[in-house]
Amino acid sequence: MEEGHGGREKGWEGGGVWRGRLRDKRQGVPGLPVARRAMLGGMEERYSKAETLALRRKHIGPSCKVFFAKDPLKIVRAQGQYMFDETGEKYLDCINNVAHVGHSHPYVTKAATKQMELLNTNSRFLHDNLVQYAQRLTATLPEKLSVCYFVNSGSEANDLALRLARQYRGHHDVITLENAYHGHVTSLIDISPYKFNQLGKDSKKEFVHVAPSPDIYRGRYREDHPDPATAYAEEVKKIIEETQKNGRKIAAFIAESMQSCGGQVIPPVGYFQKVAEYVRAAGGVFIADEVQVGFGRVGKHFWAFQLQGEDFVPDIVTMGKPIGNGHPMSCVVTTREIAEKFGASGLEYFNTFGGNPVSCAIGLAVLEVIEKEDLQGNATRVGSYLLELLVEQKKKHPLVGDIRGVGLFVGVDLVKDQQKRTPATAEALHLIYKLKEQKILLSADGPYRNILKFKPPMCFTMEDAKHVVEIIDVLLTEIEEATGMKTGNDVSTNTRCKIKANEGSPQLESANESTSHLNGAACRQENGFYPEKHSVPSKTIRT
Amino acid sequence: MEEGHGGREKGWEGGGVWRGRLRDKRQGVPGLPVARRAMLGGMEERYSKAETLALRRKHIGPSCKVFFAKDPLKIVRAQGQYMFDETGEKYLDCINNVAHVGHSHPYVTKAATKQMELLNTNSRFLHDNLVQYAQRLTATLPEKLSVCYFVNSGSEANDLALRLARQYRGHHDVITLENAYHGHVTSLIDISPYKFNQLGKDSKKEFVHVAPSPDIYRGRYREDHPDPATAYAEEVKKIIEETQKNGRKIAAFIAESMQSCGGQVIPPVGYFQKVAEYVRAAGGVFIADEVQVGFGRVGKHFWAFQLQGEDFVPDIVTMGKPIGNGHPMSCVVTTREIAEKFGASGLEYFNTFGGNPVSCAIGLAVLEVIEKEDLQGNATRVGSYLLELLVEQKKKHPLVGDIRGVGLFVGVDLVKDQQKRTPATAEALHLIYKLKEQKILLSADGPYRNILKFKPPMCFTMEDAKHVVEIIDVLLTEIEEATGMKTGNDVSTNTRCKIKANEGSPQLESANESTSHLNGAACRQENGFYPEKHSVPSKTIRT
Repeated sequence: MEEGHGGREKGWEGGGVWRGRLRDKRQGVPGLPVARRAMLGGMEERYSKAETLALRRKHIGPSCKVFFAKDPLKIVRAQGQYMFDETGEKYLDCINNVAHVGHSHPYVTKAATKQMELLNTNSRFLHDNLVQYAQRLTATLPEKLSVCYFVNSGSEANDLALRLARQYRGHHDVITLENAYHGHVTSLIDISPYKFNQLGKDSKKEFVHVAPSPDIYRGRYREDHPDPATAYAEEVKKIIEETQKNGRKIAAFIAESMQSCGGQVIPPVGYFQKVAEYVRAAGGVFIADEVQVGFGRVGKHFWAFQLQGEDFVPDIVTMGKPIGNGHPMSCVVTTREIAEKFGASGLEYFNTFGGNPVSCAIGLAVLEVIEKEDLQGNATRVGSYLLELLVEQKKKHPLVGDIRGVGLFVGVDLVKDQQKRTPATAEALHLIYKLKEQKILLSADGPYRNILKFKPPMCFTMEDAKHVVEIIDVLLTEIEEATGMKTGNDVSTNTRCKIKANEGSPQLESANESTSHLNGAACRQENGFYPEKHSVPSKTIRT
Repeated sequence: MEEGHGGREKGWEGGGVWRGRLRDKRQGVPGLPVARRAMLGGMEERYSKAETLALRRKHIGPSCKVFFAKDPLKIVRAQGQYMFDETGEKYLDCINNVAHVGHSHPYVTKAATKQMELLNTNSRFLHDNLVQYAQRLTATLPEKLSVCYFVNSGSEANDLALRLARQYRGHHDVITLENAYHGHVTSLIDISPYKFNQLGKDSKKEFVHVAPSPDIYRGRYREDHPDPATAYAEEVKKIIEETQKNGRKIAAFIAESMQSCGGQVIPPVGYFQKVAEYVRAAGGVFIADEVQVGFGRVGKHFWAFQLQGEDFVPDIVTMGKPIGNGHPMSCVVTTREIAEKFGASGLEYFNTFGGNPVSCAIGLAVLEVIEKEDLQGNATRVGSYLLELLVEQKKKHPLVGDIRGVGLFVGVDLVKDQQKRTPATAEALHLIYKLKEQKILLSADGPYRNILKFKPPMCFTMEDAKHVVEIIDVLLTEIEEATGMKTGNDVSTNTRCKIKANEGSPQLESANESTSHLNGAACRQENGFYPEKHSVPSKTIRT
């Protein structure tokens, strides 16, 4: 393998090909006859891409979407922050927050193999890995958070968190944030406006209460507000008061420590403390969902909730994605008090795979790599540099409305109009597809799908940051030129994300209404994860 | 390692020590000072057993129970059907239906390692493993069942099955069986009487309807009924009619193809066909939960629902435990029609870890081992032999009320009175602890915790079967002698499972009432998975 793991030390080896100018658009790739059983970096390709796609259509649920539906990627191997397709093409991965310590990290693989050779069984037997991992994991948290439940996914973790919260005082209602996503099981779709808003008007259950997202760029209280933390917390207080008037009881407030799918939103400092105070006074608990943002991603802290300050301790913390570098595992950590109330019901909690010796060995290995390779330090350094570079872009490009981030969790809010902050949904989608042509994997998310979402493997380098921003710079310039943004031509303003599928030169359909939250949702609903046909600005772009 | 994997070929290597007579009771094990960092078959022991236990108490939720709470086992390695504790003691595993092709199977480990070295990412990229696995897995099923959703646990699978069923026609209600267990997430506790019955009277939700368990030994219609299949199906029909009268609509009937936690219940042939007919007529679907019983365990079929005959095809099949030999993975398979209705909502279904290349490589390896090692054939042969041996025990022991099973899924229903079929709960628990002393791991389950539950790794051998039944024979004789069952002394009849914690010689408290279902539940509730203090029959047993 030419790429060493953890590119930070070994550097960006393929940068020379990419830097400075855009790659030629790849021709004919979708139709390329791919030799079967071609050896690709040790990987035997069993099917041609067309065959893989056909089999997928036949045997995988249509609700399971692929990236870049128009021309999906077939990835056969990955290392560090790079992924390789079936032709050997190398992609820079800026989105995978699961391959946290880097794709295919040999230390993690070795730990998994060693343990698989010895034992993989359930947690009804005593095992050192389980307790050692619980000890190590809780050591990263405030002392009060000392009791673990090991499960298999962020969804299982958040579901269990709700069960813990509800058992605690026998309350049932949940306060969740606008645009929040907490998982795919029934109980979590119920509390995820990101999902249930797509199911129509009556999809919000009576026990669910939606508080405004503490988004100081697009939300109710913005950067010019004297105290947005208090203002947003007061909104939660109002909900609690109203709920109580109706005789309902709050079991929990749940929020990602930073909203990811919700649009890379970083809550103002002090917000969580105030919310926790109100929620606890009402007999509820504070659940910090760290599934997407935990494990040192924010750099200077191990957990994103710690950005709120040392005086803030959640009652329950849920973990997921990065915890096993891709291995299916997750965890809920809570206080002794809550755990004992849960135990007092007498109901056993048994999770067949949760906390097995292999999962724990992998979890331990991930913690060790984060420490040994100083990935938190790297997140701080590279993240700050990435932010700096992006802030430069903001000065330059009218399409860039806001840059926000901490560590290797960064959002770029694209707008059609900097004053009105009109989401540039189609432009973001176009950019994502153009970046793919340049072998860069990035995604757009948020309620309007206009936020570029950086959450790369933690071994992302300075050079990677420089490279991706350079390419974004060129592409934004092109889009702005094509849509006349710089010349005052307002073609792209107030356009909806509805797609006109013109073969050859797909066009963005204009409409005289602002992109609304509902439109954003409708867009996702129509087009799945990434639409089959993606829109581009109406003028032709030369690459 | 002295034990080869897949003992079937290499034979029972440690049998000589165990066979013919009982082992001496191990002395002092709980207090043994265990050297730290002792090398145990390649495994470094980090903590003494006492330390592991203390750390577990500190850091693992008290709802997570251990086997043999009074003296839990610390297992450090396992191979095939054997597990080894920290002192090197070898246990015969008769209960682990997760280590399906045998503990630590090298072929599975190799497949996992090879794929982990290459790539482990989400299913938004095309990958051959995903489609190849889906193809191979659906090939084991009737043609109509062709669309897969890969998830991480049986709970995630059953939750998704409910979502598919509810989306299908927009119905909501669920019919479930008495004593059923379908998983630990909120939506599944709601439909699991095995769980919600422990939470008190009002714990059954309005949308949940409980049908009688089609148990022809303990149920409403027994082996002497001319047509129990029809009789039990009519009960479901009645529920549907009543539900419809109340304006409610059935989304699904869900049942394990054989009830496992519910007491190793094998439904009479023809029952599923009739139930499916009624449920479909009401606009609902039939969900066959194969989480515990699938993947060839029943021997002559790959899926337990196939015992009902070729004319029966469920609408949704859920898989779990054995699917990855311990790796956290699972699957839901359904029809094109149901999958398309689910897709039509527009809501994406994304599961971060589900269907990743490593999970699929492991799933493929498990399927290959089942085939290559003819584990279905082995299940048929060894299972039949085990049943034969147990039937002999039934003739001999008044404690054995019923023997039922197919393949390597076998239940032994222990009774205090063969006529009244009074569950021998305390005796079953006592036997389990005595078997542990003899280095045999077995469990007791069912609503009264009186059913010995055999579900060993599929490489279980004839010699293993012979060995365990020989030991059971000796122990049953002892218990019967001690309790006077053979001499007509009725001390142990009509006793409740309530525990009197007499130090040294714990006693079973007698009470003049039959063990009721409620008592069974209360017993579980009081005592957790296995009680801290287990009861033994009131006369002293010499071993």
